Amino acid sequence: MADASSDPAAPVVGTLPAGPRNAITDVPGVTVGHCTLADGACQTGVTVIRPHAGDTYRNKVPAAATVLNGFGKSIGLVQVDELGVLETPLALTNTFSVGALAQAQIRAAVAANPEIGRSWPTVNPLVFECNDGFLNDIQAMAVQAPHYDAALADAGVDVAQGAVGAGRGMSSFGAKGGIGTASRVAGGYTVGALVLSNFGTPESLILAGRPLGAELDRQLKQQPEPEKGSIIMIVATDAPLDARQLRRLSLRAGTGLARTGSVYGHGSGDIALAFSTAYTVPHLADAPMPAVAMVHESKLDPLFRAAADSVEQAIVHALWHAQTVQGRAGHTRRALRDILPDLTA
Amino acid sequence: MADASSDPAAPVVGTLPAGPRNAITDVPGVTVGHCTLADGACQTGVTVIRPHAGDTYRNKVPAAATVLNGFGKSIGLVQVDELGVLETPLALTNTFSVGALAQAQIRAAVAANPEIGRSWPTVNPLVFECNDGFLNDIQAMAVQAPHYDAALADAGVDVAQGAVGAGRGMSSFGAKGGIGTASRVAGGYTVGALVLSNFGTPESLILAGRPLGAELDRQLKQQPEPEKGSIIMIVATDAPLDARQLRRLSLRAGTGLARTGSVYGHGSGDIALAFSTAYTVPHLADAPMPAVAMVHESKLDPLFRAAADSVEQAIVHALWHAQTVQGRAGHTRRALRDILPDLTA
Amino acid sequence: MADASSDPAAPVVGTLPAGPRNAITDVPGVTVGHCTLADGACQTGVTVIRPHAGDTYRNKVPAAATVLNGFGKSIGLVQVDELGVLETPLALTNTFSVGALAQAQIRAAVAANPEIGRSWPTVNPLVFECNDGFLNDIQAMAVQAPHYDAALADAGVDVAQGAVGAGRGMSSFGAKGGIGTASRVAGGYTVGALVLSNFGTPESLILAGRPLGAELDRQLKQQPEPEKGSIIMIVATDAPLDARQLRRLSLRAGTGLARTGSVYGHGSGDIALAFSTAYTVPHLADAPMPAVAMVHESKLDPLFRAAADSVEQAIVHALWHAQTVQGRAGHTRRALRDILPDLTA
Amino acid sequence: MADASSDPAAPVVGTLPAGPRNAITDVPGVTVGHCTLADGACQTGVTVIRPHAGDTYRNKVPAAATVLNGFGKSIGLVQVDELGVLETPLALTNTFSVGALAQAQIRAAVAANPEIGRSWPTVNPLVFECNDGFLNDIQAMAVQAPHYDAALADAGVDVAQGAVGAGRGMSSFGAKGGIGTASRVAGGYTVGALVLSNFGTPESLILAGRPLGAELDRQLKQQPEPEKGSIIMIVATDAPLDARQLRRLSLRAGTGLARTGSVYGHGSGDIALAFSTAYTVPHLADAPMPAVAMVHESKLDPLFRAAADSVEQAIVHALWHAQTVQGRAGHTRRALRDILPDLTA
Repeated sequence: MADASSDPAAPVVGTLPAGPRNAITDVPGVTVGHCTLADGACQTGVTVIRPHAGDTYRNKVPAAATVLNGFGKSIGLVQVDELGVLETPLALTNTFSVGALAQAQIRAAVAANPEIGRSWPTVNPLVFECNDGFLNDIQAMAVQAPHYDAALADAGVDVAQGAVGAGRGMSSFGAKGGIGTASRVAGGYTVGALVLSNFGTPESLILAGRPLGAELDRQLKQQPEPEKGSIIMIVATDAPLDARQLRRLSLRAGTGLARTGSVYGHGSGDIALAFSTAYTVPHLADAPMPAVAMVHESKLDPLFRAAADSVEQAIVHALWHAQTVQGRAGHTRRALRDILPDLTA
Repeated sequence: MADASSDPAAPVVGTLPAGPRNAITDVPGVTVGHCTLADGACQTGVTVIRPHAGDTYRNKVPAAATVLNGFGKSIGLVQVDELGVLETPLALTNTFSVGALAQAQIRAAVAANPEIGRSWPTVNPLVFECNDGFLNDIQAMAVQAPHYDAALADAGVDVAQGAVGAGRGMSSFGAKGGIGTASRVAGGYTVGALVLSNFGTPESLILAGRPLGAELDRQLKQQPEPEKGSIIMIVATDAPLDARQLRRLSLRAGTGLARTGSVYGHGSGDIALAFSTAYTVPHLADAPMPAVAMVHESKLDPLFRAAADSVEQAIVHALWHAQTVQGRAGHTRRALRDILPDLTA
Repeated sequence: MADASSDPAAPVVGTLPAGPRNAITDVPGVTVGHCTLADGACQTGVTVIRPHAGDTYRNKVPAAATVLNGFGKSIGLVQVDELGVLETPLALTNTFSVGALAQAQIRAAVAANPEIGRSWPTVNPLVFECNDGFLNDIQAMAVQAPHYDAALADAGVDVAQGAVGAGRGMSSFGAKGGIGTASRVAGGYTVGALVLSNFGTPESLILAGRPLGAELDRQLKQQPEPEKGSIIMIVATDAPLDARQLRRLSLRAGTGLARTGSVYGHGSGDIALAFSTAYTVPHLADAPMPAVAMVHESKLDPLFRAAADSVEQAIVHALWHAQTVQGRAGHTRRALRDILPDLTA
Repeated sequence: MADASSDPAAPVVGTLPAGPRNAITDVPGVTVGHCTLADGACQTGVTVIRPHAGDTYRNKVPAAATVLNGFGKSIGLVQVDELGVLETPLALTNTFSVGALAQAQIRAAVAANPEIGRSWPTVNPLVFECNDGFLNDIQAMAVQAPHYDAALADAGVDVAQGAVGAGRGMSSFGAKGGIGTASRVAGGYTVGALVLSNFGTPESLILAGRPLGAELDRQLKQQPEPEKGSIIMIVATDAPLDARQLRRLSLRAGTGLARTGSVYGHGSGDIALAFSTAYTVPHLADAPMPAVAMVHESKLDPLFRAAADSVEQAIVHALWHAQTVQGRAGHTRRALRDILPDLTA
């Protein structure tokens, strides 16, 4: 039974045990930081995930992604797909701020390694986004490099959830969405997930197996709108997996997502990325390459289940920990627990 | 509310209405045929889907596939991916009989068009498979060309479900699997699905939203075995979609599959293919190409939902209509409704 | 015989006839503009390609890309791959300026359509890059939004080639690279290409079939350096092709590239994108969708050949029209025709 | 300088040294066998490549493929793409015999490991094809399981080239095609290639950099016909590469192919597969997984060049070693050296 210790009342997904924090930071070395902008029409922010405490450019992290629905504006996936590694922390933000954060990642990498763009190759920024334009005035492009730096400085193992960081202005199922995280232990390894949840129409909601869509739709019916959402799902594990195996793992995020009622709507940028902390790949060609025995393919099923359950649980947490937020033009997204008070009864 | 007229008691998935047959043959022109081999250790067969009544080589059908998990031995997807069309009926069978049916498809195409492999290019066989080796002696390779021809001859709009055709020896969730079909009407179009269901571990079963895994696992616990399943999901629609849009549609089959409890297990060949009957592409270069207005991208969501629900419903039907089958080495798979009699109470 | 009218002496690739300008702008409606920054250590710029004179957001352009080698930092390909359309002009620049141009594209789209990010979905920036860090001080991040606007304002049918726009600081084969363009007429249609050429080691050069690598390497041997290049290849056509066919066309850019001696080096971001001007896809769902008869698949070979030849010819032009440029830290790239004066003898 | 020892007169591609045999079998452990059917209208055969001397099912071989143009009917790539390994020898034959060889591979695997399809999962057949229907009566489907067994029994390090094995009935550039092989040594490793060459229109031929198309077309002009070819390119290396890196390597086969004049014609099934012999992956989950330090990504360029050059050289060898063959309906393909006798002058 999962230990949803961060909030005793949150519904629990599946039967696998959670890690001690029930968070992506249960994967050793992973930290998460937020920078939240919440001022009137500006309801947005930045969330970063650091795969390890060191320099990710010098010690790259094996990774792979699955684009479930490519209505999205991320930057960096072309190179991840080719080379199978990350070389910056992962950054999440609103859709109009990808460029600003990419610039911030370049500046941070160059500050740490001035050879980049000189005697060394360039660096691959990696930024994901969802559209928080309902609550947030995205046309103002408020997010800038200092917010990225602030999120990095905030990184730690305790992960704030709900309307924080990149999740500040996000919506899900017509209610307030945002940041959620969870973890599961299976097959001798830990798998953790962090989601930026901004997807879902009210009538489709299934919360940890409970079909709440009809009731939610009834409560919200005064605000019908087209699906313009998205979800970013980051999966971390300490299992030694290569990029091909991580691609397989990342795809399973989509099964957890589907169990919440999503059919990967046309207008939703649904992207999953998985990385492993079990080893790193050196930037310098003369450093020794890691000689790692990967997990035997036939032992992946527990990890697949753990990825699916962690992602679904992280979505549940994003909804559960959300608080009501009022943003631009008087737009408001109410917390799910306010709309459906019986949930916690 | 879906009209599961073929069996009033089958649990219903989702809220979209089904077509009159609640079958893939609700898509006009589509027919399905079976050839079943059921004799002692030989429990297997062939199922074919004809996209239209004409010659599929001369009038090719727009199509695209998604490989959710490529632990599978299909033939034909390389060309479908490149050219975006089918040019034979689709054939389903057991994993060791793909080659035999590919040969049969070639012979049938050449019989209809003797220019193939002479003055014309070759034909692309399209055969999908699951592994029915628990009930069926697949090493005997019993399926041959005449069984393909028989299945074709059997093709019609009434679709037998359960332990028939390619589904004869298949298992799902530790119970009897096989053939299931369903349809949904949405967005002004019909979407139908046919599945060859051979996947799932008992403890993971969710039947139309009902988590039955724990109870099923308890009933079956004398027979633990590793997941070696697979599922083939064929989606048909009369909506005018191009190959890129059909690829998007095919991926949504995976959301219906996930809602039954699957995480696309490592050993499971989980493949979805979608085709449209709205137009055909002529083989001959001097025939006029169709000038078709495709569905606007923003109107795909109802079709995505219909594909997801049809696939999930088809899986429910495969389980629901299954009958207990005894096969090789005394192996038996019991019908789900026999194992869990409360289901129909 | 191709008419390389822009420079009579340029070696000619292949046997297909060129269009009147031997440029991508021979495809009706396509225009190209540059903004060049050339001041001391700042040797860089922006090049834009407009697929048509109208609003590309409201009237989207069918497109598809092939990533031959994904050591690249472009933005926008995820959505192009999913939806099969462009919705902004294409922008090319240096690798550290992708974020700045993405922001500029967003601002320009919002200025034209203020509903974007409000009642309408967001816009997908589309920016490609190569690394001009040898000549240009990329860490200065000199490119900004006004340079994008200036390039747009410069757009026309006469295309300056060589060390202009995004090509200002680029290198190829150890010589000066940059912008090249060409076109070919085949199969009743026009195919044009524009390249941002920044790839190639000296010893590998094959110029329009002539192996010049050994001689070039001999002339340059004082400056050995690792390959850190890239090439962006944009292919336009007035043939009615859908996104799947355009993906096929884009891949053929790689055959033209290979004939110049490239093996798509590890550190080279080699990306091709093809678009068609034969029809557009409306943004608004209630506008009529185009009903277009696409080119029959068996008639694509002339277009494939035209794409290959146009790209190879465009690379030849980029080298041919290059001029010697001195940039940061006293670095200089000499024009190929200065290094190998016999070429024009 | 490559040592084309098998035929001193063959034109040499590139500057990298060949291995001692200038054949794919220079990669230690790799063997090749043929079974040739040459009797009147039956001009076809089987070629097999064994990655190592042992049981490929129990000790799987890392592998990955690139489909340059998917007008092809291979079987097995779906699973190679997912799992990154081969588990049978590779088989090449004519397009209508894929099914027969798939069956043969299954029978051979089951004979060696009777658990397959019983207590173990199934086996993934891996068969590639080209269309030899101009010379060979493919409708007769003459290739059967014993021919596969005979090719396996023939496997050794000396590789017959030209009109042998699967190459018996193949054509290239309007001349006789067939089997070719070559190798290159680079970066401390050996890369070898074997091609089944059945592609190319006369006017496009470039032989080791020499544009012979116009002259060849003149000599052959009495026999114009549409391109219905294909080429299969198998690349082997002893470098320790993972599946992702092997996919990168396999793509470079396409650069060697392009340098012979190919633009990956619409009707040509152009497929490359690369495998490594540096380690194997055990079938049984309780066997230890290999702990291998892969080649650092920045050291791949010599291997990319070696793959490109080996493939181009193998195509040259296929043409060079071809002999004139007469087949069905009086059709004849003449050896290139007979058509262009000046080649050897």
